[in-house]
Amino acid sequence: MNVLLRIAYDGTNYCGFQVQNNGISVAQVFQDAMEAVFGNRPDIKGCSRTDAGVHALAFALNFSTDCRIPVEKIPIAINTKLPPDIRVLSAQVVPDDFHARYAAHNKTYHYRIRNSVIESPFDCRYTVRVPRQLDVDAMNAAAKRCEGTHDFTTFCAAGSSAAAHGDTVRTITDCHVVREGDVVTISVTADGYLYNMVRILAGTLVEVGSGRMTPDQVTAALDACDRSKAGPTMPAKGLFLYQVEYDEPTA
Amino acid sequence: MNVLLRIAYDGTNYCGFQVQNNGISVAQVFQDAMEAVFGNRPDIKGCSRTDAGVHALAFALNFSTDCRIPVEKIPIAINTKLPPDIRVLSAQVVPDDFHARYAAHNKTYHYRIRNSVIESPFDCRYTVRVPRQLDVDAMNAAAKRCEGTHDFTTFCAAGSSAAAHGDTVRTITDCHVVREGDVVTISVTADGYLYNMVRILAGTLVEVGSGRMTPDQVTAALDACDRSKAGPTMPAKGLFLYQVEYDEPTA
Repeated sequence: MNVLLRIAYDGTNYCGFQVQNNGISVAQVFQDAMEAVFGNRPDIKGCSRTDAGVHALAFALNFSTDCRIPVEKIPIAINTKLPPDIRVLSAQVVPDDFHARYAAHNKTYHYRIRNSVIESPFDCRYTVRVPRQLDVDAMNAAAKRCEGTHDFTTFCAAGSSAAAHGDTVRTITDCHVVREGDVVTISVTADGYLYNMVRILAGTLVEVGSGRMTPDQVTAALDACDRSKAGPTMPAKGLFLYQVEYDEPTA
Repeated sequence: MNVLLRIAYDGTNYCGFQVQNNGISVAQVFQDAMEAVFGNRPDIKGCSRTDAGVHALAFALNFSTDCRIPVEKIPIAINTKLPPDIRVLSAQVVPDDFHARYAAHNKTYHYRIRNSVIESPFDCRYTVRVPRQLDVDAMNAAAKRCEGTHDFTTFCAAGSSAAAHGDTVRTITDCHVVREGDVVTISVTADGYLYNMVRILAGTLVEVGSGRMTPDQVTAALDACDRSKAGPTMPAKGLFLYQVEYDEPTA
Protein backbone atom coordinates (compact mmCIF):
# COMPACT_ATOMS: atom_id res chain seq x y z
CA MET A 1 0.00 0.00 0.00
CA ASN A 2 1.00 3.62 -0.57
CA VAL A 3 0.99 5.56 2.71
CA LEU A 4 0.88 9.34 3.16
CA LEU A 5 2.33 10.63 6.43
CA ARG A 6 2.14 14.11 7.88
CA ILE A 7 5.16 14.86 10.04
CA ALA A 8 6.33 17.81 12.15
CA TYR A 9 9.94 18.58 12.85
CA ASP A 10 12.17 21.11 14.53
CA GLY A 11 14.76 21.70 11.80
CA THR A 12 17.38 23.27 14.10
CA ASN A 13 19.67 20.26 14.11
CA TYR A 14 19.19 19.13 10.50
CA CYS A 15 20.70 20.02 7.12
CA GLY A 16 17.18 20.01 5.63
CA PHE A 17 14.70 17.29 4.70
CA GLN A 18 16.57 15.77 1.78
CA VAL A 19 19.46 13.34 2.33
CA GLN A 20 22.76 15.17 1.79
CA ASN A 21 26.42 14.46 2.26
CA ASN A 22 27.15 17.51 4.38
CA GLY A 23 25.03 16.79 7.46
CA ILE A 24 22.25 14.80 9.06
CA SER A 25 18.95 15.18 7.23
CA VAL A 26 15.42 14.63 8.47
CA ALA A 27 14.89 12.02 5.72
CA GLN A 28 17.91 10.01 6.86
CA VAL A 29 16.81 9.95 10.51
CA PHE A 30 13.30 9.15 9.37
CA GLN A 31 14.45 6.24 7.22
CA ASP A 32 16.48 4.89 10.14
CA ALA A 33 13.30 4.87 12.24
CA MET A 34 11.30 3.23 9.45
CA GLU A 35 13.93 0.54 9.07
CA ALA A 36 13.66 -0.22 12.79
CA VAL A 37 9.88 -0.57 12.46
CA PHE A 38 9.44 -2.22 9.04
CA GLY A 39 12.64 -4.23 8.81
CA ASN A 40 13.50 -2.58 5.49
CA ARG A 41 14.27 0.94 4.35
CA PRO A 42 11.39 2.26 2.22
CA ASP A 43 12.08 4.89 -0.40
CA ILE A 44 10.32 8.09 0.72
CA LYS A 45 8.93 10.87 -1.42
CA GLY A 46 8.84 14.24 0.31
CA CYS A 47 6.51 17.10 -0.63
CA SER A 48 9.50 19.43 -0.92
CA ARG A 49 13.07 19.97 0.10
CA THR A 50 13.37 22.24 3.07
CA ASP A 51 16.61 24.09 3.76
CA ALA A 52 18.92 23.55 6.70
CA GLY A 53 17.32 24.89 9.88
CA VAL A 54 13.81 25.26 8.43
CA HIS A 55 10.97 23.73 10.48
CA ALA A 56 7.79 21.91 9.45
CA LEU A 57 4.42 21.74 11.14
CA ALA A 58 2.88 19.40 8.57
CA PHE A 59 5.40 18.12 6.06
CA ALA A 60 3.93 15.42 3.79
CA LEU A 61 5.70 12.33 2.51
CA ASN A 62 4.66 9.01 1.05
CA PHE A 63 6.16 5.54 0.77
CA SER A 64 5.17 2.04 -0.34
CA THR A 65 5.05 -0.78 2.17
CA ASP A 66 3.65 -4.27 2.47
CA CYS A 67 3.81 -4.16 6.27
CA ARG A 68 0.87 -5.55 8.23
CA ILE A 69 0.75 -2.78 10.82
CA PRO A 70 -2.73 -1.16 10.63
CA VAL A 71 -2.27 2.28 9.04
CA GLU A 72 -3.61 4.12 12.11
CA LYS A 73 -0.89 2.49 14.25
CA ILE A 74 1.97 3.59 11.99
CA PRO A 75 2.45 7.05 13.60
CA ILE A 76 2.96 5.64 17.10
CA ALA A 77 5.15 2.79 15.82
CA ILE A 78 7.53 5.16 14.00
CA ASN A 79 7.44 7.79 16.76
CA THR A 80 8.90 5.30 19.26
CA LYS A 81 12.01 5.14 17.04
CA LEU A 82 12.37 8.87 16.30
CA PRO A 83 14.21 11.58 18.27
CA PRO A 84 11.83 14.07 19.98
CA ASP A 85 12.42 16.77 17.35
CA ILE A 86 10.62 14.72 14.66
CA ARG A 87 7.06 13.42 15.09
CA VAL A 88 4.63 11.59 12.83
CA LEU A 89 1.23 13.25 13.20
CA SER A 90 -0.98 11.07 11.01
CA ALA A 91 -1.01 8.33 8.39
CA GLN A 92 -3.47 7.47 5.62
CA VAL A 93 -3.59 5.09 2.67
CA VAL A 94 -3.50 6.86 -0.72
CA PRO A 95 -3.76 5.61 -4.34
CA ASP A 96 -0.70 3.81 -5.69
CA ASP A 97 0.15 6.65 -8.06
CA PHE A 98 -0.01 9.37 -5.38
CA HIS A 99 3.26 11.31 -5.03
CA ALA A 100 3.57 13.79 -2.15
CA ARG A 101 5.40 16.31 -4.30
CA TYR A 102 3.54 16.16 -7.61
CA ALA A 103 0.04 15.84 -6.08
CA ALA A 104 0.43 18.97 -3.94
CA HIS A 105 -1.76 21.87 -5.14
CA ASN A 106 -0.17 24.44 -2.97
CA LYS A 107 1.93 24.85 0.12
CA THR A 108 1.70 27.41 2.88
CA TYR A 109 4.76 28.72 4.69
CA HIS A 110 4.85 30.87 7.80
CA TYR A 111 7.71 33.20 8.63
CA ARG A 112 7.81 34.12 12.35
CA ILE A 113 9.38 37.35 13.62
CA ARG A 114 9.88 38.34 17.26
CA ASN A 115 9.23 42.08 17.02
CA SER A 116 10.84 43.08 20.29
CA VAL A 117 13.96 44.63 21.72
CA ILE A 118 14.32 41.55 23.94
CA GLU A 119 14.57 37.99 22.68
CA SER A 120 12.39 35.24 24.17
CA PRO A 121 14.42 32.42 25.76
CA PHE A 122 11.62 30.01 24.83
CA ASP A 123 10.98 30.99 21.24
CA CYS A 124 14.45 32.02 20.02
CA ARG A 125 14.88 28.86 17.94
CA TYR A 126 11.60 29.56 16.13
CA THR A 127 11.61 33.30 15.50
CA VAL A 128 14.00 35.88 14.13
CA ARG A 129 14.13 39.04 16.20
CA VAL A 130 13.50 42.44 14.62
CA PRO A 131 13.83 45.15 17.28
CA ARG A 132 12.28 48.02 15.34
CA GLN A 133 8.48 48.25 15.64
CA LEU A 134 7.01 46.85 12.41
CA ASP A 135 4.07 48.51 10.64
CA VAL A 136 1.91 45.47 9.93
CA ASP A 137 -0.61 47.46 7.87
CA ALA A 138 2.14 48.57 5.48
CA MET A 139 3.45 44.98 5.34
CA ASN A 140 -0.04 43.75 4.43
CA ALA A 141 -0.35 46.35 1.69
CA ALA A 142 2.95 45.14 0.23
CA ALA A 143 1.96 41.49 0.74
CA LYS A 144 -1.09 42.06 -1.51
CA ARG A 145 1.25 43.30 -4.27
CA CYS A 146 2.97 39.90 -4.19
CA GLU A 147 -0.24 37.92 -4.75
CA GLY A 148 -1.06 36.62 -8.21
CA THR A 149 0.99 35.07 -11.00
CA HIS A 150 4.39 36.70 -11.41
CA ASP A 151 7.90 36.04 -12.53
CA PHE A 152 9.47 35.85 -9.05
CA THR A 153 13.12 36.17 -10.12
CA THR A 154 13.38 39.12 -7.72
CA PHE A 155 12.59 36.74 -4.83
CA CYS A 156 14.93 33.97 -6.00
CA ALA A 157 18.45 33.36 -4.69
CA ALA A 158 21.03 34.18 -7.34
CA GLY A 159 22.44 31.11 -9.07
CA SER A 160 19.45 28.82 -8.52
CA SER A 161 18.77 26.18 -11.16
CA ALA A 162 15.14 27.37 -11.68
CA ALA A 163 16.46 30.82 -12.58
CA ALA A 164 19.05 29.30 -14.91
CA HIS A 165 16.24 27.46 -16.74
CA GLY A 166 13.90 30.45 -16.88
CA ASP A 167 11.33 28.55 -14.80
CA THR A 168 10.54 31.44 -12.48
CA VAL A 169 6.78 32.03 -12.79
CA ARG A 170 4.72 31.02 -9.76
CA THR A 171 1.28 31.91 -8.38
CA ILE A 172 0.87 33.23 -4.83
CA THR A 173 -2.80 32.75 -3.91
CA ASP A 174 -2.50 34.35 -0.49
CA CYS A 175 0.04 36.50 1.32
CA HIS A 176 -0.80 38.25 4.57
CA VAL A 177 0.75 39.34 7.86
CA VAL A 178 -0.64 38.94 11.39
CA ARG A 179 0.60 40.30 14.72
CA GLU A 180 -0.05 38.39 17.96
CA GLY A 181 1.64 40.26 20.79
CA ASP A 182 5.34 40.50 19.94
CA VAL A 183 5.15 37.86 17.22
CA VAL A 184 4.57 38.96 13.62
CA THR A 185 3.81 36.08 11.26
CA ILE A 186 4.00 36.31 7.47
CA SER A 187 1.86 33.66 5.75
CA VAL A 188 2.40 32.77 2.07
CA THR A 189 0.43 30.22 0.03
CA ALA A 190 1.62 29.40 -3.49
CA ASP A 191 1.58 26.63 -6.07
CA GLY A 192 5.37 26.45 -5.91
CA TYR A 193 8.43 28.28 -4.67
CA LEU A 194 11.79 29.35 -5.99
CA TYR A 195 14.95 28.91 -3.96
CA ASN A 196 14.79 31.09 -0.80
CA MET A 197 11.60 32.74 -2.11
CA VAL A 198 9.78 32.98 1.24
CA ARG A 199 12.88 34.15 3.11
CA ILE A 200 13.53 36.91 0.54
CA LEU A 201 9.83 37.88 0.46
CA ALA A 202 9.92 38.06 4.29
CA GLY A 203 13.06 40.21 4.21
CA THR A 204 11.35 42.52 1.71
CA LEU A 205 8.21 42.84 3.85
CA VAL A 206 10.41 43.63 6.88
CA GLU A 207 11.94 46.48 4.84
CA VAL A 208 8.41 47.75 4.24
CA GLY A 209 7.39 47.31 7.89
CA SER A 210 10.50 49.24 8.95
CA GLY A 211 9.71 52.13 6.58
CA ARG A 212 12.70 51.49 4.31
CA MET A 213 10.59 50.40 1.30
CA THR A 214 7.09 51.29 0.10
CA PRO A 215 4.50 48.89 -1.37
CA ASP A 216 5.04 50.64 -4.71
CA GLN A 217 8.74 49.85 -4.50
CA VAL A 218 7.87 46.19 -3.91
CA THR A 219 5.78 46.17 -7.09
CA ALA A 220 8.64 47.85 -8.98
CA ALA A 221 11.14 45.37 -7.53
CA LEU A 222 8.99 42.41 -8.66
CA ASP A 223 8.62 43.90 -12.15
CA ALA A 224 12.38 44.40 -12.41
CA CYS A 225 13.11 40.64 -12.11
CA ASP A 226 16.26 41.57 -10.23
CA ARG A 227 17.25 39.94 -6.91
CA SER A 228 19.20 43.08 -5.90
CA LYS A 229 15.95 45.12 -5.73
CA ALA A 230 14.50 42.94 -2.94
CA GLY A 231 15.21 42.89 0.78
CA PRO A 232 17.68 40.54 2.48
CA THR A 233 17.23 36.78 2.83
CA MET A 234 15.92 36.20 6.35
CA PRO A 235 17.50 33.42 8.48
CA ALA A 236 16.15 29.87 8.20
CA LYS A 237 15.05 29.46 11.82
CA GLY A 238 11.94 31.68 11.41
CA LEU A 239 10.57 29.60 8.51
CA PHE A 240 7.92 26.89 8.92
CA LEU A 241 6.32 24.71 6.27
CA TYR A 242 2.81 25.11 7.63
CA GLN A 243 0.49 23.19 5.32
CA VAL A 244 0.46 21.14 2.11
CA GLU A 245 -2.85 20.79 0.30
CA TYR A 246 -4.02 17.82 -1.74
CA ASP A 247 -7.27 16.92 -3.43
CA GLU A 248 -9.72 15.21 -1.11
CA PRO A 249 -10.36 12.35 -0.90
CA THR A 250 -6.82 11.17 -1.52
CA ALA A 251 -7.76 7.47 -1.33
CA MET B 1 21.11 51.99 44.21
CA ASN B 2 19.04 48.85 44.71
CA VAL B 3 17.85 47.45 41.38
CA LEU B 4 15.01 44.98 40.80
CA LEU B 5 15.27 42.93 37.60
CA ARG B 6 12.69 40.69 36.01
CA ILE B 7 14.30 37.88 34.07
CA ALA B 8 13.05 34.97 31.97
CA TYR B 9 14.92 31.73 31.50
CA ASP B 10 14.66 28.33 29.93
CA GLY B 11 15.73 26.11 32.83
CA THR B 12 16.48 23.03 30.69
CA ASN B 13 20.25 23.35 30.96
CA TYR B 14 20.51 24.60 34.57
CA CYS B 15 20.57 22.99 38.00
CA GLY B 16 18.12 25.65 39.22
CA PHE B 17 18.41 29.34 40.04
CA GLN B 18 20.57 29.09 43.15
CA VAL B 19 24.34 28.54 42.93
CA GLN B 20 25.13 24.88 43.66
CA ASN B 21 28.13 22.61 43.48
CA ASN B 22 26.51 19.96 41.31
CA GLY B 23 25.86 21.92 38.14
CA ILE B 24 25.63 25.26 36.38
CA SER B 25 23.02 27.52 37.94
CA VAL B 26 21.16 30.46 36.45
CA ALA B 27 22.55 32.69 39.23
CA GLN B 28 26.14 31.77 38.40
CA VAL B 29 25.74 32.48 34.68
CA PHE B 30 23.90 35.67 35.58
CA GLN B 31 26.66 36.83 37.91
CA ASP B 32 29.24 36.12 35.20
CA ALA B 33 27.30 38.42 32.86
CA MET B 34 26.97 41.11 35.55
CA GLU B 35 30.70 40.96 36.24
CA ALA B 36 31.38 41.55 32.53
CA VAL B 37 29.09 44.60 32.58
CA PHE B 38 29.75 46.14 36.01
CA GLY B 39 33.35 45.11 36.57
CA ASN B 40 32.44 43.48 39.88
CA ARG B 41 30.24 40.60 40.95
CA PRO B 42 27.19 41.93 42.79
CA ASP B 43 25.48 39.74 45.37
CA ILE B 44 22.03 38.88 43.99
CA LYS B 45 18.87 38.13 45.95
CA GLY B 46 16.43 35.90 44.08
CA CYS B 47 12.68 35.74 44.74
CA SER B 48 12.92 31.97 45.17
CA ARG B 49 14.99 28.94 44.41
CA THR B 50 13.74 27.08 41.40
CA ASP B 51 14.56 23.43 40.91
CA ALA B 52 16.72 21.96 38.16
CA GLY B 53 14.91 22.14 34.83
CA VAL B 54 12.19 24.56 36.00
CA HIS B 55 11.59 27.62 33.78
CA ALA B 56 10.75 31.22 34.62
CA LEU B 57 8.76 33.78 32.66
CA ALA B 58 9.30 36.59 35.19
CA PHE B 59 11.72 35.65 37.93
CA ALA B 60 12.57 38.63 40.17
CA LEU B 61 15.95 39.41 41.70
CA ASN B 62 17.61 42.46 43.20
CA PHE B 63 21.16 43.68 43.71
CA SER B 64 23.01 46.79 44.87
CA THR B 65 25.22 48.67 42.48
CA ASP B 66 26.92 52.05 42.18
CA CYS B 67 27.23 51.71 38.40
CA ARG B 68 26.48 54.76 36.25
CA ILE B 69 24.53 52.91 33.59
CA PRO B 70 21.00 54.41 33.45
CA VAL B 71 18.63 51.83 34.93
CA GLU B 72 16.61 51.49 31.71
CA LYS B 73 19.80 50.49 29.84
CA ILE B 74 20.70 47.72 32.28
CA PRO B 75 18.58 44.98 30.59
CA ILE B 76 20.24 45.44 27.20
CA ALA B 77 23.72 45.76 28.76
CA ILE B 78 23.39 42.47 30.66
CA ASN B 79 21.60 40.67 27.80
CA THR B 80 24.60 41.17 25.53
CA LYS B 81 26.63 39.04 27.98
CA LEU B 82 24.04 36.31 28.61
CA PRO B 83 23.40 33.06 26.69
CA PRO B 84 20.10 33.10 24.72
CA ASP B 85 18.28 30.94 27.29
CA ILE B 86 18.39 33.74 29.91
CA ARG B 87 17.02 37.26 29.23
CA VAL B 88 16.59 40.35 31.38
CA LEU B 89 13.13 41.76 30.68
CA SER B 90 13.10 44.93 32.76
CA ALA B 91 14.92 46.88 35.48
CA GLN B 92 13.69 49.37 38.07
CA VAL B 93 15.15 51.15 41.09
CA VAL B 94 13.64 50.01 44.40
CA PRO B 95 14.11 51.16 48.04
CA ASP B 96 17.37 50.14 49.69
CA ASP B 97 15.65 47.69 52.02
CA PHE B 98 13.74 45.90 49.24
CA HIS B 99 14.49 42.16 49.08
CA ALA B 100 13.08 40.19 46.13
CA ARG B 101 12.28 37.22 48.32
CA TYR B 102 10.88 38.80 51.49
CA ALA B 103 8.92 41.56 49.70
CA ALA B 104 7.00 39.11 47.49
CA HIS B 105 3.31 38.82 48.42
CA ASN B 106 2.62 35.86 46.27
CA LYS B 107 3.95 33.93 43.35
CA THR B 108 2.11 32.30 40.48
CA TYR B 109 3.31 29.09 38.87
CA HIS B 110 2.01 27.47 35.70
CA TYR B 111 2.24 23.77 35.02
CA ARG B 112 1.92 22.95 31.29
CA ILE B 113 0.66 19.59 30.03
CA ARG B 114 0.55 18.41 26.41
CA ASN B 115 -2.69 16.41 26.47
CA SER B 116 -2.11 14.44 23.30
CA VAL B 117 -1.06 11.02 22.08
CA ILE B 118 1.64 12.74 20.02
CA GLU B 119 4.37 14.99 21.43
CA SER B 120 5.07 18.39 19.85
CA PRO B 121 8.65 18.70 18.52
CA PHE B 122 8.52 22.43 19.31
CA ASP B 123 7.07 22.37 22.81
CA CYS B 124 8.51 19.14 24.25
CA ARG B 125 10.98 21.03 26.47
CA TYR B 126 8.13 23.05 27.98
CA THR B 127 5.30 20.57 28.47
CA VAL B 128 4.87 17.13 29.95
CA ARG B 129 2.78 14.85 27.79
CA VAL B 130 -0.31 13.09 29.19
CA PRO B 131 -1.89 10.94 26.46
CA ARG B 132 -5.21 10.23 28.21
CA GLN B 133 -7.88 12.88 27.57
CA LEU B 134 -8.07 15.03 30.72
CA ASP B 135 -11.40 16.16 32.19
CA VAL B 136 -10.62 19.82 32.85
CA ASP B 137 -13.96 20.44 34.64
CA ALA B 138 -13.12 17.74 37.18
CA MET B 139 -9.60 19.17 37.55
CA ASN B 140 -11.07 22.62 38.23
CA ALA B 141 -13.44 21.19 40.85
CA ALA B 142 -10.44 19.60 42.61
CA ALA B 143 -8.35 22.77 42.15
CA LYS B 144 -10.99 24.73 44.12
CA ARG B 145 -10.55 22.25 47.01
CA CYS B 146 -6.88 23.24 47.19
CA GLU B 147 -7.58 26.96 47.55
CA GLY B 148 -7.43 28.56 51.00
CA THR B 149 -5.13 28.17 54.00
CA HIS B 150 -4.13 24.56 54.60
CA ASP B 151 -1.39 22.43 56.02
CA PHE B 152 0.07 21.28 52.68
CA THR B 153 2.17 18.38 54.02
CA THR B 154 0.33 16.14 51.53
CA PHE B 155 1.80 18.22 48.69
CA CYS B 156 5.33 18.38 50.14
CA ALA B 157 8.22 16.12 49.12
CA ALA B 158 9.11 13.73 51.94
CA GLY B 159 12.19 14.80 53.91
CA SER B 160 11.95 18.53 53.18
CA SER B 161 13.25 20.88 55.86
CA ALA B 162 9.93 22.80 56.06
CA ALA B 163 8.16 19.55 56.91
CA ALA B 164 10.83 18.71 59.50
CA HIS B 165 10.20 22.10 61.18
CA GLY B 166 6.40 21.84 61.04
CA ASP B 167 6.28 24.95 58.82
CA THR B 168 3.78 23.54 56.34
CA VAL B 169 0.84 25.97 56.35
CA ARG B 170 0.45 28.07 53.18
CA THR B 171 -2.40 29.97 51.52
CA ILE B 172 -3.37 29.28 47.91
CA THR B 173 -5.37 32.29 46.71
CA ASP B 174 -6.11 30.89 43.26
CA CYS B 175 -5.89 27.51 41.59
CA HIS B 176 -7.48 26.85 38.22
CA VAL B 177 -7.02 24.86 35.03
CA VAL B 178 -7.36 26.04 31.42
CA ARG B 179 -7.28 24.10 28.15
CA GLU B 180 -6.03 25.74 24.94
CA GLY B 181 -6.09 23.14 22.18
CA ASP B 182 -3.88 20.26 23.31
CA VAL B 183 -2.25 22.26 26.10
CA VAL B 184 -3.75 22.08 29.60
CA THR B 185 -2.29 24.64 32.00
CA ILE B 186 -2.62 24.47 35.78
CA SER B 187 -2.20 27.90 37.42
CA VAL B 188 -1.47 28.23 41.15
CA THR B 189 -1.06 31.45 43.12
CA ALA B 190 0.08 31.24 46.75
CA ASP B 191 1.91 33.20 49.42
CA GLY B 192 4.57 30.51 49.56
CA TYR B 193 5.35 26.98 48.50
CA LEU B 194 6.68 23.80 50.05
CA TYR B 195 9.27 21.68 48.28
CA ASN B 196 7.77 20.23 45.04
CA MET B 197 4.34 21.55 46.04
CA VAL B 198 3.20 22.62 42.55
CA ARG B 199 4.54 19.48 40.88
CA ILE B 200 2.73 17.23 43.40
CA LEU B 201 -0.45 19.33 43.15
CA ALA B 202 -0.24 19.03 39.35
CA GLY B 203 0.25 15.26 39.62
CA THR B 204 -2.81 15.07 41.86
CA LEU B 205 -4.96 17.12 39.48
CA VAL B 206 -3.84 14.86 36.60
CA GLU B 207 -5.10 11.89 38.66
CA VAL B 208 -8.44 13.67 38.94
CA GLY B 209 -8.50 14.60 35.25
CA SER B 210 -7.80 10.97 34.35
CA GLY B 211 -10.65 9.69 36.54
CA ARG B 212 -8.37 7.98 39.07
CA MET B 213 -9.19 10.39 41.96
CA THR B 214 -12.28 12.43 42.83
CA PRO B 215 -12.32 16.01 44.17
CA ASP B 216 -13.54 14.54 47.50
CA GLN B 217 -10.48 12.32 47.61
CA VAL B 218 -8.28 15.39 47.07
CA THR B 219 -9.90 17.07 50.09
CA ALA B 220 -9.40 13.89 52.13
CA ALA B 221 -5.79 13.64 50.96
CA LEU B 222 -5.10 17.24 52.02
CA ASP B 223 -6.73 16.63 55.42
CA ALA B 224 -4.63 13.52 55.95
CA CYS B 225 -1.32 15.48 55.84
CA ASP B 226 0.23 12.45 54.19
CA ARG B 227 2.36 12.68 51.01
CA SER B 228 1.41 9.13 50.04
CA LYS B 229 -2.25 10.16 49.55
CA ALA B 230 -1.39 12.61 46.73
CA GLY B 231 -0.58 11.99 43.08
CA PRO B 232 2.93 11.66 41.66
CA THR B 233 5.47 14.51 41.43
CA MET B 234 5.29 15.74 37.83
CA PRO B 235 8.58 16.36 35.93
CA ALA B 236 10.30 19.74 36.24
CA LYS B 237 10.15 20.71 32.56
CA GLY B 238 6.40 21.55 32.64
CA LEU B 239 6.82 24.05 35.49
CA PHE B 240 7.10 27.83 34.98
CA LEU B 241 7.44 30.55 37.57
CA TYR B 242 4.93 32.85 35.92
CA GLN B 243 4.63 35.93 38.11
CA VAL B 244 5.88 37.44 41.38
CA GLU B 245 3.79 40.18 42.94
CA TYR B 246 5.08 43.12 44.99
CA ASP B 247 3.45 46.20 46.44
CA GLU B 248 3.27 49.08 44.00
CA PRO B 249 5.01 51.47 43.85
CA THR B 250 8.16 49.66 44.82
CA ALA B 251 10.30 52.79 44.71
